Amino acid sequence: MNRYQTVALAVGERIEQGLYRVGDRLPSIRQLCREFRVSVSTVQEAYRRLEERGVVEARPRSGYFVAARIAASALPSVSRPAQRPLDVSQWDQVLELVGESPSHDRLLRLGRGIPDLEAATLKPLLRRLSTLHRRAAAQDLNYDGLAGSLELRRQIARLATTSGCLLHPDDLLITTGCQEALSLSLRTLAGPGDVVAVDSPSFYGTMQILKAQGLKALEIPTDPQTGISLEALELALEQWPVKAIQVTPTCNNPLGYTMPEARKRALVALAQRFDVAIVEDDIYGDLAFATPRPRTIKSFDDDDRVLLCSAFSKTLVPGLRVGWIAPGRYRDQVLHMKYVSTGASATLPQLAVAEFVAHGHYERHLRQVVRQYQRQRDIMLGWVMRDFPPGTRVSDPQGGFLLWLELPDAIDCVRLNARLSEESLHIAPGSLFSASGKYRNCLRLNYAAPLTGKIEAAVKRIGETVASQLGEHAELLG
Amino acid sequence: MNRYQTVALAVGERIEQGLYRVGDRLPSIRQLCREFRVSVSTVQEAYRRLEERGVVEARPRSGYFVAARIAASALPSVSRPAQRPLDVSQWDQVLELVGESPSHDRLLRLGRGIPDLEAATLKPLLRRLSTLHRRAAAQDLNYDGLAGSLELRRQIARLATTSGCLLHPDDLLITTGCQEALSLSLRTLAGPGDVVAVDSPSFYGTMQILKAQGLKALEIPTDPQTGISLEALELALEQWPVKAIQVTPTCNNPLGYTMPEARKRALVALAQRFDVAIVEDDIYGDLAFATPRPRTIKSFDDDDRVLLCSAFSKTLVPGLRVGWIAPGRYRDQVLHMKYVSTGASATLPQLAVAEFVAHGHYERHLRQVVRQYQRQRDIMLGWVMRDFPPGTRVSDPQGGFLLWLELPDAIDCVRLNARLSEESLHIAPGSLFSASGKYRNCLRLNYAAPLTGKIEAAVKRIGETVASQLGEHAELLG
Repeated sequence: MNRYQTVALAVGERIEQGLYRVGDRLPSIRQLCREFRVSVSTVQEAYRRLEERGVVEARPRSGYFVAARIAASALPSVSRPAQRPLDVSQWDQVLELVGESPSHDRLLRLGRGIPDLEAATLKPLLRRLSTLHRRAAAQDLNYDGLAGSLELRRQIARLATTSGCLLHPDDLLITTGCQEALSLSLRTLAGPGDVVAVDSPSFYGTMQILKAQGLKALEIPTDPQTGISLEALELALEQWPVKAIQVTPTCNNPLGYTMPEARKRALVALAQRFDVAIVEDDIYGDLAFATPRPRTIKSFDDDDRVLLCSAFSKTLVPGLRVGWIAPGRYRDQVLHMKYVSTGASATLPQLAVAEFVAHGHYERHLRQVVRQYQRQRDIMLGWVMRDFPPGTRVSDPQGGFLLWLELPDAIDCVRLNARLSEESLHIAPGSLFSASGKYRNCLRLNYAAPLTGKIEAAVKRIGETVASQLGEHAELLG
Repeated sequence: MNRYQTVALAVGERIEQGLYRVGDRLPSIRQLCREFRVSVSTVQEAYRRLEERGVVEARPRSGYFVAARIAASALPSVSRPAQRPLDVSQWDQVLELVGESPSHDRLLRLGRGIPDLEAATLKPLLRRLSTLHRRAAAQDLNYDGLAGSLELRRQIARLATTSGCLLHPDDLLITTGCQEALSLSLRTLAGPGDVVAVDSPSFYGTMQILKAQGLKALEIPTDPQTGISLEALELALEQWPVKAIQVTPTCNNPLGYTMPEARKRALVALAQRFDVAIVEDDIYGDLAFATPRPRTIKSFDDDDRVLLCSAFSKTLVPGLRVGWIAPGRYRDQVLHMKYVSTGASATLPQLAVAEFVAHGHYERHLRQVVRQYQRQRDIMLGWVMRDFPPGTRVSDPQGGFLLWLELPDAIDCVRLNARLSEESLHIAPGSLFSASGKYRNCLRLNYAAPLTGKIEAAVKRIGETVASQLGEHAELLG
């Protein structure tokens, strides 16, 4: 780690631990120079990074302060799921969310995990798809090799260096979206009745894999800023025969946090101690607001136990179904699982993405949408704070395009959805993100698409509907 | 059934049962008119159909005879697999066959299940793909609905009528190739340790699904002309707790037979009696040489227990990965399994295929390639009979583009492949098609691509290599 990173990490952790509270003045540059024995420019760089991450703010002539954008008290609570293995339910609600094509939908689905598809920087991808298909001979529509396009794997390996990973193209397998990568991983690692530890709340797609495979979810308490509780996880590993740990540690879905590096490293150490595999979902990782993007857990994986899963579905477009996996020591088993599940993945979409990345369009597109998403996060946060009733807590996304709201306990977001559907609105109720339907008072909102007046009005309506449900509840109690 | 079909079926069954042998004169038209109380033109039509199927041949002024093309004695033996549930092995060899992209391969892979990709009648598909991608907006690359394109499902439902099936578009789910359809089916029906009955030899892709899912294969004796032995299957169902029956009853892979309709019907009745599901792989069904194509087992399925799996991978191109499933009563479970496995399938390839079919190009293409494959079957058969040592038995494909050879017992086709690879040739050794590596003296050859001199020379070399291995073996025995 660089010196400025060491300083930034230390100051960041003190803020996380509550040593400095929102609005507190932070140590001066001179103080930190003395403490860490580093130069003024190193401390300046550290503060600049923390500022970029939205953790601190500089006030001219006053110094640095803990950023006030979200008071810690307004963040969602640390989750407290049932700490025993559970069967996963909630399929009906997931189906309601993902069953229909969003393009042919009469509902404004503010809950789905769809990126901004109108970004101008996607144009070169469309052009490449068009060119490749115009020139295609039927031979290009033959079966591909099982591992997928070598050129695409080369590009993914190159991109992985930005997250601290040294991967060889042979370490990678192309999959049919990230969902296939996650499915192959979990089916390789565990069978019916086995226990998988997950952060909580957790992506419903992964939870439903557990359900389909007859696995049990062991939901671990999770902090909305630092991720899965390592302390709770350690206790769980002592108590239960856990076959795999599944986490989304960078730009978490749905909570938006990025686990601090020290915690990522500690998670690997814990997995090593208990000899458990880690399935890392990094699908939103390249959308981190920090530069360079945070390291993956995989980058600390010195004995090949991490299966890194990702895709271009959130960074580019979902409908090409181009994902990948770096399965570490499980490569042979995962390749077999890939063969029996779908055979080789389609060739031309892989080639289109490979060329798009190779010509630098991917990085250009990322710079553009990451700035957009960060800006829109703040706008959406503002709307929520303005339009939702007091007592609403809200996440502080460090990347991606998803906001998590924790509403007063009286609110049931499944009922809320039923009410909203009358107005052609739909949110993702929090209960999707729990094995047993916890977080019913939570919901997920998408701020990826340009935030038009229509979306602003929708957020307002959702806030008003929440308020009216609160009112009805109070009346019932009264 | 029409009258002429009744007559054709009866005569065909008598030939199958050995009442008439190759070269025997068949009853005269007048005799059959009396026996079945039908008109002369009905019997003529019946004979015409049998002639088309290569079962009988007309000799001018002499009448009809059992066709001599393949003497029954030269057909592969009825298989006699181990009649107990077995774990599936042979993955290494399957990987050798399917691991690499055939387009970038230095080997001439005569064993792979790849259609003729140079057919001129595929051109409209390429044009449609190009047009769709040229016009595509990023919104067209959004997630699709889970069930897949309604327009494509409509077209598939329309096509299904030719195989006797009345399907509603809602009865269908689009999958990522037939492999996903088979995988979803088997994972829905059975879990680790469960037993699945299969025809034998059987497609290696299905066998490897059993392996990955921890299922056991119960291989049932299978006749090279009429398919899975219903008698042996009945005994097996009495003896073992079979969770599913998996068969490829039309243009079987690898044996090429089509089960007679009466047997398909009887298979459904047997499954009903034992309350077992049937997974029907129909991927080669539309390539039957008979017109109209034979009915599917699904068309006799009056209580929705058949999961019909298919794709456009053998009829059009494999690399679009467009398959489908009609999962009957298991629809909800299969839809869930689909969601967790790969999410929605890619949209644009579905639309391209839907338009290709809707404009009649599919049927035109089928007519063209089916004639081609039937012609090439005969040529390839001729080469094999000429170039392989005596004692070689060979299948009599009723559709598709795959030939199955049973060589003298002394031949080991895995060793044969090792020898052939020195000359950049590769066949599919028979052991892939068995759970436990039986059929080592068998191999599969592909006759889809135009049969050039290069392929003729390859077949010759394979025959010579077999002969030389036989010679070495005889020497060893001394």
